[in-house]
Amino acid sequence: MYKQAIVGLVAELATAHIVPRQVSIDYTGAPPNLSTLANFSLFETWRPKSHVLPASGQIGDPCMHYTDPETGLFHVGYLHDGNGASGATTDNFVTYTDLNNNSANFIFPGGKNDPVAVFDGSVIERGINGTPTLLYTSVSYLPIQWTIAYTKGSETQSLAIARDGGSNFTKLEHGPVIPSPPFAVNVTGFRDPFVFQNPQVDALLKKRNGTEYTIISGGTHGGGPSLFLYAHYGDESDNFQTWEYIGEWWHEKANTTWSEANWAGRWGFNFEVGNYFALDKDGYNPHGEIFTTLGTEWSYDPIVPQVSDVREMLWAAGKQSIVNGSIKFEPTMAGRLDAGKSAYAAAGKAVPSSSQASQKSGAPDRFLSYLWLTGDFYGTINTPKAQQNWTGSLLLPRELSIGYIDVVDNELSREKGAWRVDTERDNGTLTLAALSQKIARESLAAFKSNTSAVIKQTGGRCSSGATFDRNPSSKHYVLSTSITFPSRSNGTRAGLEILSGELETTRIYYQFSNESLVVDRSNSSAAAATNDWVQTETESGKFRLFDVPTASGTQIEMLNLTIVVDGGIVEVHVNDRFALSTWVWSWYEESRNIRFIAEGGEVEFGETTIWEGLVDAWPERSS
Amino acid sequence: MYKQAIVGLVAELATAHIVPRQVSIDYTGAPPNLSTLANFSLFETWRPKSHVLPASGQIGDPCMHYTDPETGLFHVGYLHDGNGASGATTDNFVTYTDLNNNSANFIFPGGKNDPVAVFDGSVIERGINGTPTLLYTSVSYLPIQWTIAYTKGSETQSLAIARDGGSNFTKLEHGPVIPSPPFAVNVTGFRDPFVFQNPQVDALLKKRNGTEYTIISGGTHGGGPSLFLYAHYGDESDNFQTWEYIGEWWHEKANTTWSEANWAGRWGFNFEVGNYFALDKDGYNPHGEIFTTLGTEWSYDPIVPQVSDVREMLWAAGKQSIVNGSIKFEPTMAGRLDAGKSAYAAAGKAVPSSSQASQKSGAPDRFLSYLWLTGDFYGTINTPKAQQNWTGSLLLPRELSIGYIDVVDNELSREKGAWRVDTERDNGTLTLAALSQKIARESLAAFKSNTSAVIKQTGGRCSSGATFDRNPSSKHYVLSTSITFPSRSNGTRAGLEILSGELETTRIYYQFSNESLVVDRSNSSAAAATNDWVQTETESGKFRLFDVPTASGTQIEMLNLTIVVDGGIVEVHVNDRFALSTWVWSWYEESRNIRFIAEGGEVEFGETTIWEGLVDAWPERSS
Repeated sequence: MYKQAIVGLVAELATAHIVPRQVSIDYTGAPPNLSTLANFSLFETWRPKSHVLPASGQIGDPCMHYTDPETGLFHVGYLHDGNGASGATTDNFVTYTDLNNNSANFIFPGGKNDPVAVFDGSVIERGINGTPTLLYTSVSYLPIQWTIAYTKGSETQSLAIARDGGSNFTKLEHGPVIPSPPFAVNVTGFRDPFVFQNPQVDALLKKRNGTEYTIISGGTHGGGPSLFLYAHYGDESDNFQTWEYIGEWWHEKANTTWSEANWAGRWGFNFEVGNYFALDKDGYNPHGEIFTTLGTEWSYDPIVPQVSDVREMLWAAGKQSIVNGSIKFEPTMAGRLDAGKSAYAAAGKAVPSSSQASQKSGAPDRFLSYLWLTGDFYGTINTPKAQQNWTGSLLLPRELSIGYIDVVDNELSREKGAWRVDTERDNGTLTLAALSQKIARESLAAFKSNTSAVIKQTGGRCSSGATFDRNPSSKHYVLSTSITFPSRSNGTRAGLEILSGELETTRIYYQFSNESLVVDRSNSSAAAATNDWVQTETESGKFRLFDVPTASGTQIEMLNLTIVVDGGIVEVHVNDRFALSTWVWSWYEESRNIRFIAEGGEVEFGETTIWEGLVDAWPERSS
Repeated sequence: MYKQAIVGLVAELATAHIVPRQVSIDYTGAPPNLSTLANFSLFETWRPKSHVLPASGQIGDPCMHYTDPETGLFHVGYLHDGNGASGATTDNFVTYTDLNNNSANFIFPGGKNDPVAVFDGSVIERGINGTPTLLYTSVSYLPIQWTIAYTKGSETQSLAIARDGGSNFTKLEHGPVIPSPPFAVNVTGFRDPFVFQNPQVDALLKKRNGTEYTIISGGTHGGGPSLFLYAHYGDESDNFQTWEYIGEWWHEKANTTWSEANWAGRWGFNFEVGNYFALDKDGYNPHGEIFTTLGTEWSYDPIVPQVSDVREMLWAAGKQSIVNGSIKFEPTMAGRLDAGKSAYAAAGKAVPSSSQASQKSGAPDRFLSYLWLTGDFYGTINTPKAQQNWTGSLLLPRELSIGYIDVVDNELSREKGAWRVDTERDNGTLTLAALSQKIARESLAAFKSNTSAVIKQTGGRCSSGATFDRNPSSKHYVLSTSITFPSRSNGTRAGLEILSGELETTRIYYQFSNESLVVDRSNSSAAAATNDWVQTETESGKFRLFDVPTASGTQIEMLNLTIVVDGGIVEVHVNDRFALSTWVWSWYEESRNIRFIAEGGEVEFGETTIWEGLVDAWPERSS
């Protein structure tokens, strides 16, 4: 659970749950101060159609996902309106069905354990009496943040059981099952339990096979960020009442980083939303390599109470072993799960091949993760909420696995970065491993197969940019292209302008000067002139194109771009191992053009394909 | 906190807080069904004048006593109306001043930690920032009883700080400081924290001198009753936030007893209201012998859920030592603190010689304990609450110390009983040690010095009873007498009839047949005929008169009786080491006569003195 929200969470008003038809707005003229417009008037303006978000109101952290063993449906959950959690089911990762009308929440705060708030939780799919059982952070006191003293008892972990197909989670009539942080540990946070099973941990801890574990995210004052490990204690008859503290499974010193070169953000001072899972090249494999995704919180100097300047959504893979009698995790590689500053709080879940969606698509066991794209920058910007009637969205679900790439053995590949050397060869090449993340196969396939129009733009050599012959007719599409760079010239930039028109444009490009994928939003929105909240900051993330061997020698790895534009959301996916997602508040209807960018040197674009239209993820919602 | 109450506690209505003048009732005629009388009409009928009880309403467990270091006043606290706790101050243990008008509570349930109830607590006199600080059981879920499965999280221990001279205890804005029972311990109860300091424990545990400890009363399902020991962890800057679990300081197997001969009741299945203190012959001495007082809960077979047939108020003294690395208590003697079935939930506190009352009386450091005399037998009898407008009382405060007696070394003195052999001598005598308990010196002195009339009745040899020459003019007095038995004839009974008249009498006597002090209430109240709730059961408690050496040989120890009659309360104190307190609901105004009882053999009565009138403990209350 991200903590800017926590500071002011309860004060946030749930917006009205009526979803009106859009009133007429002139998108050919300059935008006014949008807060002067009628309520609901901006509902459609930037609303995504293929993403997960509630019918109305604020979406917070994704969490509480699970596949119902009874139905095979995948349940995607999310915090909603600062007043509990809501969710939807899907049998295809394309379309979703709200669990309740108007996305009404399936759990609310206000019980004895959670008088103040319900924070993130996760679901034991075969829980109490075989029923999906939620372990969640029950909140009694606020504020909570790593920048201030921790209020004892503010965060505990409690249980609730799915009823009525998960449209209601009924809290158990007893106290928290994890009633406090570990003894005498002065935590910075203690929340977001993520339950899992893992045979490797069973073996290391000599626990019964199939033991349920949970990590709880947080950290220690004066120490640094941590993931605390607990094991379900006793047998099934315990009904998940008793959780044994195992230890700090992972701890990093405060304010440190995996890489001063910034391949993986900073560990910061406090971890949030930690996920634990094991992957192989195909997806989820309990015997595979151990991965975690985690949100990190930190600040620039000086630290201001109740202000966490920065949140970063990271991943790490590594080894767990017994050190001095305790199980410890040590990363072997780490990186950003998404480089967008609004992308955070990823929540994943192992999705078995037996789930409905996987049965249809033929997918193996997977680990899917949904990130959150905060709609008001963690509560710090004053968006026109009443006019829009919704705030924030989840990003498209991503399939995580281990990706491998054969590269030239050189300084670029040997640097400590968001990858690790998997195999060394005599011939001067290496196989690198890294976290692979791809848009869920069903989603991407549906966007392509259900397209209203396919636009193909020939590529070719290019040194000064080029306009597209034909542009999308809407702001909802998937674009795929590739760029080949002949050299690593510091001055070279290449990419695409999108959402472009006379008065607005968004520039997405890669540059070698700092090996970054950049989304320049400085001219993205005409609304910025009249609306302070419109963020114009450039987003960027460090990404390396390796040297790869070819039959005739070596070349620079090709840059493969998949860009999803869905209303105000722009997701940029690069080479299946980098993502940067952000908001682009383009105003003018005509801002739909696309151009190649090539600066400071010649590059070669591959064929570009645009699949227009996407898919309405919510066919059952009245609009 | 006794648990019959807990089952139904919250449902109990607080009675009105208006204390009306008594309406006229004819105590010369037969009593009607009292529940047909007007509200408040029985207010004075059995109301004690010298005891601690609230202006109106139900009194529950005494608890939360302390001497305010600022004022030197002793605060006596008690649960009140099932809705928190109230209390009063005293500078003399004779008269009391309510902390709030109409005995309004100084703490109420309904907070985040205690949404359901406030149970017993105790006060760290120099607590947070030097202010008296209450550690109490905060209750979130009911019912709770050793006969049923324990609801996780139902009892936690929380802090509140004295404000406004203790007329208000403000809860700290954070969660419980002891948020759960020890890990994976399936408790039967976990309540009634009793805080203390003890240098012997400091040494055994190698803790900082002056470490604050608490015992918490309860037990384990399938195990038996326990006192759980916790130590304040860290230094003063921790502000009593962190308590380290040390272990089960005392554990007994379920359903066992100190003595099958019934010298000390049964340990039962669950401990409540455990107190920890150290005594010597003069009173409280941290370096002295370790004592505990405790309530025990048990049932006859079969155990019925939510029914605890029996509660017993016991004491034990013993040795604490390190066994297998853990501190353990082992009793060396144990007994009943009061043999009355309605007497329970004793709460004591070390009272320093510097306290106001002690300064005036010259008393040394003492340990004073108040017992509770339930007014409706733990909620099981349907007394006319609206008519009486009060329910229950505390008993007079008792000074606890170690008492010594020189006795003949024989089977009587060598039996494992409510005493221990302190010293063995060559001359065939022993010194026994036992818990000495005396009515607080100030109280008893005040009753004697403020008497409205002293009645003296000559004793002498007696074999068939004798009426008194003069009888008390009220039902409020102290009586003192002694009885010498020439032999241990099984048929001999001797004592007093009190509250006697044509139609009612209460018989208090000692008999050798089963070495018991008996209070026969079978004919105590004419109201019993028309009121089912009037208990007529005989009360009795095992008490031994030893053989004691004399100049010329040996004789049976003299029986010294101190009887306090205060309205409906009768306290019988014997030889400073036995007490039996009970309710006697004598109805007729004329039932004030006193007679000697002597049956089955001749005995010799000493001079009997009656100090009439007692002292109004509540001079500041309007009546």
